[in-house]
Amino acid sequence: MAMTVPRYLTGDPAGIKEFLDKFDVFLFDCDGVLWSGDHLFPGTVETLELLRSRGKQVVFVTNNSTKSRADYKRKLETLGIPATTEEIFSSSYSASIYISRILNLPANKRKVFVLGETGIEQELRSENVPFIGGTDPSYRRDITAEDYKLIAAGDESLLDPEVGVVLVGLDFHLNYLKLALAYHYIRRGAVFLATNIDSTLPNSGTLFPGAGTVSAPLILMVGRDPVALGKPNQAMMDAIEGKFQLDRARACMVGDRANTDIRFGLEGNLGGTLGVLTGVSSKEDFVEGVVRPSAYLDKLSDLLEAAE
Amino acid sequence: MAMTVPRYLTGDPAGIKEFLDKFDVFLFDCDGVLWSGDHLFPGTVETLELLRSRGKQVVFVTNNSTKSRADYKRKLETLGIPATTEEIFSSSYSASIYISRILNLPANKRKVFVLGETGIEQELRSENVPFIGGTDPSYRRDITAEDYKLIAAGDESLLDPEVGVVLVGLDFHLNYLKLALAYHYIRRGAVFLATNIDSTLPNSGTLFPGAGTVSAPLILMVGRDPVALGKPNQAMMDAIEGKFQLDRARACMVGDRANTDIRFGLEGNLGGTLGVLTGVSSKEDFVEGVVRPSAYLDKLSDLLEAAE
Repeated sequence: MAMTVPRYLTGDPAGIKEFLDKFDVFLFDCDGVLWSGDHLFPGTVETLELLRSRGKQVVFVTNNSTKSRADYKRKLETLGIPATTEEIFSSSYSASIYISRILNLPANKRKVFVLGETGIEQELRSENVPFIGGTDPSYRRDITAEDYKLIAAGDESLLDPEVGVVLVGLDFHLNYLKLALAYHYIRRGAVFLATNIDSTLPNSGTLFPGAGTVSAPLILMVGRDPVALGKPNQAMMDAIEGKFQLDRARACMVGDRANTDIRFGLEGNLGGTLGVLTGVSSKEDFVEGVVRPSAYLDKLSDLLEAAE
Repeated sequence: MAMTVPRYLTGDPAGIKEFLDKFDVFLFDCDGVLWSGDHLFPGTVETLELLRSRGKQVVFVTNNSTKSRADYKRKLETLGIPATTEEIFSSSYSASIYISRILNLPANKRKVFVLGETGIEQELRSENVPFIGGTDPSYRRDITAEDYKLIAAGDESLLDPEVGVVLVGLDFHLNYLKLALAYHYIRRGAVFLATNIDSTLPNSGTLFPGAGTVSAPLILMVGRDPVALGKPNQAMMDAIEGKFQLDRARACMVGDRANTDIRFGLEGNLGGTLGVLTGVSSKEDFVEGVVRPSAYLDKLSDLLEAAE
């Protein structure tokens, strides 16, 4: 980790200009940077316009696996931020690319058992990855005495022999039956993946269970962690690099959390990282912490100081 | 932990006799020792008869919190094992005693929010502990947009201000709403208790999610462990000692799991521990593991070799 003191760019238009000139691509964490909850920060739209007008590629990077890229594009547009689906990189998309292009699954083990919502399903479909589970209502029921016996016997009516991956994201409909099936698939050799392992999910100004709470029971049962495809895991950076033909030296990660966003950029050897003070991390975190960005701002829209 | 090599008693009638003579009380783990799922192991009844005929006190110690002691007595009888309610010690009973007699809750914080089944509810009732949650069907539903707002606002329609304890056992009906409520109760200061934290539960000859999978998401979110009242927590041994006036030196714990049953006996300074190979732990676990019993058998009924 870089232990230099990050440059404070608010009120330093020359510094901002110099900083922006170093990069062709800006990767954005969203919540805490562009908006908070349902509240768009003033100047967000203008700042993104400034970057685009100077020919910068903008990428929105999110760990929220419950939404597909298309869902996320609609969310951005609802908030007033113009975006294309291609500019969005979500952990569910990252996981789908990892499964379809990086995991080398045997021909008879290509199915994915999903613990998660429609965002994951849509992205798996976009990569032509077959899956079961997910939002299928037939899994939304209590476990029965018969289920125990069928699972114990490895019966194909409940345990599909073609499942080679268990992919865990945030599942608002998690239940005992799904957990039992995921566990047995992993025991039988399925690859254990997670879209992301955030413990909490912000909503209504407080915190609710995040995707990590769905993998936690499985981690306890199988005794090992999943491969997590969201920030700060570098599998996500590799996927971004592959998709955007990223020149890492000319890319900058922008975020509000030192230990996920900034760490993600530093471990990915990006040319720069930019912290903003409108989210989780404080000035002290950025200036004195173990994980420090190369520069930081009070708020993202301070970049507009370099507009003229 | 004792690092001696445990004595293998199967096929050693003299060794068995010598071993049995050392103890007046046998504490039995049940599933994996006396039976598996609904399958009674041959010789279980005769083995218990042998022990009783020699004047041994038999205690059935179970971490299964889904059943009350009365339920468990019925289960034993259904399997053909004569038992009294007084011979049964369950983690839900242990937890109820802990809440009613050991935790000193303020008068306005006496309610327990239960993640679990009827066994916990019955034992809480037997100790006159008020509770909400549990098997109440009004919690068996999806979370709504309105719920997020009410929970964030601390609204009393969802967050009862009298709740001072969150008690987590195995809940076959765990869902996102209950998890969110348990998390918010703990954030607001409720004591975090678990009947037990077993990662798995044996059924039909294989393993299914145990009570530990219900506390795991909460542990991830709040960043600390619950006080667990089942094996191997010594709060349960203390409660057993108090109830049966146990002479620990003359007591033996019998179980199939090194890291719960055997550890429970070793940390409780019992005179002996006896492992059986009809459940979770293997011969290698008992002979080469970190937690080793003083003796082990292929199966419990091998004790019958000492009958004549």
